[in-house]
This record gives sequence, structure tokens and C-alpha cells, in this order.
Amino acid sequence: MDASNFSDDIQETSNSEIEAFFCSAPPLKDAAEIKMKLKDFVGRQSLHSESGKATRVVCVTSGGTTVPLEQRCVRYIDNFSSGHRGAASTEYFLKAGYAVIFLYRRGTCQPFCSSLPDDPLLNCFDCPDMRNVQVQPSYAEDVVNAVGRHQAAITGGTLLKLPFTTIFEYLQILKETAVSMKDLGSNAMFYLAAAVSDFYVPWETMTEHKIQSRSGPLDLRLAQVPKMLSVFRKDWAPRAFCISFKLETDTRILLEKADMALRRYNMHMVVANELSTRKEEVVIVTASGSKIVRRDMTKAGGEVEEPLIEVIVSEHSIYIETSTP
Amino acid sequence: MDASNFSDDIQETSNSEIEAFFCSAPPLKDAAEIKMKLKDFVGRQSLHSESGKATRVVCVTSGGTTVPLEQRCVRYIDNFSSGHRGAASTEYFLKAGYAVIFLYRRGTCQPFCSSLPDDPLLNCFDCPDMRNVQVQPSYAEDVVNAVGRHQAAITGGTLLKLPFTTIFEYLQILKETAVSMKDLGSNAMFYLAAAVSDFYVPWETMTEHKIQSRSGPLDLRLAQVPKMLSVFRKDWAPRAFCISFKLETDTRILLEKADMALRRYNMHMVVANELSTRKEEVVIVTASGSKIVRRDMTKAGGEVEEPLIEVIVSEHSIYIETSTP
Repeated sequence: MDASNFSDDIQETSNSEIEAFFCSAPPLKDAAEIKMKLKDFVGRQSLHSESGKATRVVCVTSGGTTVPLEQRCVRYIDNFSSGHRGAASTEYFLKAGYAVIFLYRRGTCQPFCSSLPDDPLLNCFDCPDMRNVQVQPSYAEDVVNAVGRHQAAITGGTLLKLPFTTIFEYLQILKETAVSMKDLGSNAMFYLAAAVSDFYVPWETMTEHKIQSRSGPLDLRLAQVPKMLSVFRKDWAPRAFCISFKLETDTRILLEKADMALRRYNMHMVVANELSTRKEEVVIVTASGSKIVRRDMTKAGGEVEEPLIEVIVSEHSIYIETSTP
Repeated sequence: MDASNFSDDIQETSNSEIEAFFCSAPPLKDAAEIKMKLKDFVGRQSLHSESGKATRVVCVTSGGTTVPLEQRCVRYIDNFSSGHRGAASTEYFLKAGYAVIFLYRRGTCQPFCSSLPDDPLLNCFDCPDMRNVQVQPSYAEDVVNAVGRHQAAITGGTLLKLPFTTIFEYLQILKETAVSMKDLGSNAMFYLAAAVSDFYVPWETMTEHKIQSRSGPLDLRLAQVPKMLSVFRKDWAPRAFCISFKLETDTRILLEKADMALRRYNMHMVVANELSTRKEEVVIVTASGSKIVRRDMTKAGGEVEEPLIEVIVSEHSIYIETSTP
């Protein structure tokens, strides 16, 4: 629920800083496979377009990134995020007819699973005869919904899931995704809900072995992750509709920071949310002002993501109509 | 795979330091419920004992603990651990007739699930008609095994699972567990495989709000978590059979540190493992010397935990026989 490494720096980040960050990052595993998946997925959306109307594609980022403190990593700094916002939003984007590239932190919430308990396999199934498993009746509807809708989206070619763990993986996959979506022009959207690390230990200055604990308190100096949002808008995704997120625990500075992010990075929208109320309401900040969006409390299981995605989809439509092709 | 906050300090930790740690910790949620579960579970084992032979109970700790960097927590330091060691060991302890209290990090590996992919519900099931789910044939055996054996252990009253996330939760629940197992005497075992944080930010000195990223690099000073293993052996679990773990990435210092932990804390056994080979072999360090244990490579799916638990169970038997009742 945060893209703060994208949003609150004072100085512009230079291209050379960003280049240095990527050069020092450990190489992405399965890079070729990821590129291929992206190419296939985005290509399929163009083929699917009917009646001259192109399919819209949104990249939803979800969950927190980690920052290793050691090269042979035992310890790392993590950003809290259950991934609920990204997973729920993915469901509403799919419902609205979008194809979704779900760039998510391993182990976080998955689309269609929010009503299930932790470890759903162990907690929702019985095995009465040690030969077959069966869903417990109280979970039957939720399990069928989760498996069925997830499978329909995957096999239907409207959902591509790409996992990450570290900030290095996240930024490299995000860049590949942006490159693969470039030809979609204004039909592409980036919904940057992942909680991205602000601070990191540059790979080349990182200790190789586990930090020893015998020698008193530990002093750590963490460098700022270069703010990528300028280069993201300018070079990676110049024509896409871009939404970033701002999470704070202190409401007094939240709107000010959201507004700053909007202007500095030329975002189309910043979604501001406060840690303790983030499931109840968010504030959408755009160039023309701000708007509070609240979940529908008259509806059982009403989520704030439902009205949020509704507003976003309609803003995206206006953006597409007014963009030069 | 590590209990290093337990093992490599230079000075003894004073009782007042430990008291201060617990006083400053945020209060444990559901403390009363956890105590009740422990009391019931341990009580049931005593009832189950047949022919005068008491049931053995092992507390297996598993996965890494987190250390929050902010009170309204957005960022935290985490210790890497998949929890595979603890989950696999739990299976072999159950097989050997032990009752197991599985103290695990939320979201990490669960017993009987090691052969399943991530997100097993979404990846092992189909939903052909949107009304029922069915296991994919290639996963049928693994899924039945996982659900069936897990359920048998839970309903049979031989497996109690207690989740934690932070170091504060972990140490508080571990203490409660030790208290509840005290009357089991030498039939109790602690198998401390969790990767426990060495450094933390004391709660009262922690910043309330999210750390802001605009002001250059971040300097963090982390305090050492007080080494609890002395007080654990002396006061919490004076008669139990105690095994701690030592994980290092540097083999040159591994055995020396394992041996130091054994002597300083009067452990019965320290399991030394090196990050890159930990699934192939471990070294068991005891007062009478050290012994390498390797997985059986002639066996499909042979795990190092199988011979490891075999050695431990037989050492525990000797310990029980030679302990004064």
C-alpha cells in the first residue's frame, strides 16, 4: 500500500544513480522466462481486442519488498504489507474487463482468496478416509469461488502472476513489464500498490557473511533507494495511466505528501491511505482535487477497493478518450 | 534454523536485562487463550500415558522472528527462514511417538506440506464446473497425505500449533510453553530451530510514526536482544532435554560457535548447520564430541531431518533413563 520510494524525495534522481542501482543489483533469475511470459500475455490481449476496441491492461503491484542486509542473506528489512489491497483490486479490475499483470510478493494475499483463513489447504479440507479430501461445508462456497475464479482468469488469459521478494527483483520485473506494455499506449495502466523499500544496502558494500552479534549494538547505515518514479513516467511508461500510493501513519502529513508526489512525478492519481483506516477509506488525489472513497457499509463484505476501482476505471476511460493515439 | 540470540554472547545476561525486555514488550494478544491451549494439550499427554510410561512432548520452534522498527509498524527486520527444518522435524517427532507443540512463524512451512507448491489451494485444485473443486491427479497423493496426516495429528491431540510473528511474541509464547511443560521433567524436549533475531529496537525508544525517507541515508542503532538461553535452562526448563541450533554462512567459525553455545548454556545438543549445505548435512555437537548427519541419498525424498531426529530421540531416551525422577 505504498510506493513511497517513488514519491517523497527532495532532489530529482539522476539517471546515473538509477543505472548504478540496476548495475549493482544481483541479476534477475528467470529473466528470459519472465520476458517471454510478458510478451505472450500482452500479445494475446491485442489479439483479443474486439470491434476495434483494444483490451485494457493494468499492472497491479502488491505486497512489500525486502532489502537484504547480507549477500548470503540471513537478515533483511521488510515492508509490512499483507497484499490485500492489490489482491482485491485485481479482482475488481478483472470484473471491469481489464487484463491484469499481478506483480506480487511471494506468500502474500492472492486474488479471490480474501475470505479464506491462513493455510487454506490445511484449514478448509477434511480427509475422512485417508484416500480423498473434501471441502468442509462451511468453506465450500468460498473455496469453489477462489479456485474457480482464479482458474478462469489464468486459463482465460486475463491474469498473469509474477512473484518477487527483494527490491532488486521488484524493480527489474516492473521495468520489464513496462517495456512489454509500451505499445498499448494509453490503454495501459500502472496501479503501484506495492510497499516498496525506501532504504537499502548497496549490493557491493554488503557484508558477505552473517553479521555477528557478539560485539555490542549494531549500527546500520542504509542508503536511499533511488526514486524511480520520474524515470518510470518519462522513459518506462510514458503513455500509460499511472497511479501511485501513499501510506502514512500520521494523517497530518499524508495529503500534503500525496499531493507532492502527484505533482513531482506527473502521476495521474495518487491514492492516499492511513495505516489504521486503510480498509475503510482512501483519498484519491488528482490534479483537479481530492475525493474521499469509502467502502459501502450497507453491503456485507463491502470493500473499499470496489468504489476505488470504479472511479479509477472511469478516469482511465476519460484519459484514453483524450489521449492522442 | 538458528537460535543465535541464544548462543554467542560474551557476558552473561543479567536477570534484570531480561525482565526489562519483557516489561518493554507489547503485551501478548490472546495470552489467556494460549495458556489454556497449552494447559489442555500438556494435560492430555499425561492422561494418555500408558503402562506407567509418560508421553514425551517436544516443543519445536520454527521460522524467523521479526523486529519492528516503528511502533505503528510499517518496516521491520526479519530473519530468513522458510521453516522447512522445523516442519519436517515435527513430522519425524510425531512418527516417533512424541506429542509436538509447533511454535511457528505465520506463513512459513507447515508439517506434511513440504512436497506441495506455494499457494497449494490455487495450484493443486481444479474447478471444472464452478460448483465443486477437485484435486489435480498429479497432486492427489501429496494433498491427501498433507490434509490427512495433519488432521490426524490435530484431532488425535498430538499436535498443537501456535503462531508468532515478532520476537516479542516468540519469547513470550516460548516462556509460557516452558512453564506449561515443567511438570513433564525429563520427558520434555525443546528443539529450538527458529531463526531468532539478535538485534532489536527497544519498544520504548521506537519511533511512533513511519520513518520518513526524505532526509538522506538512514542510520539505525539496534540493541542486542538479551541472550535468554541461560535463564531458559536455569529457570524456564531446568529438567528438559534442550537442543539449540547454530546457523552460519562461514564454515570456519561454525563449529567453534556451536561448541561455545553448548558449554556456555549447558545445552544437551547443538545442531550446527551451514546455510548452503543445510539440507544435505548437519553436525550434532554434544559434550562427548561431534557427529555429522547426512540425508540418505539412496532414498527418494530422503531428508536430513530423518536421521537427525533418530539420533536425537535415542539421546533423549538415554537422558530420561539417567535423569533422577
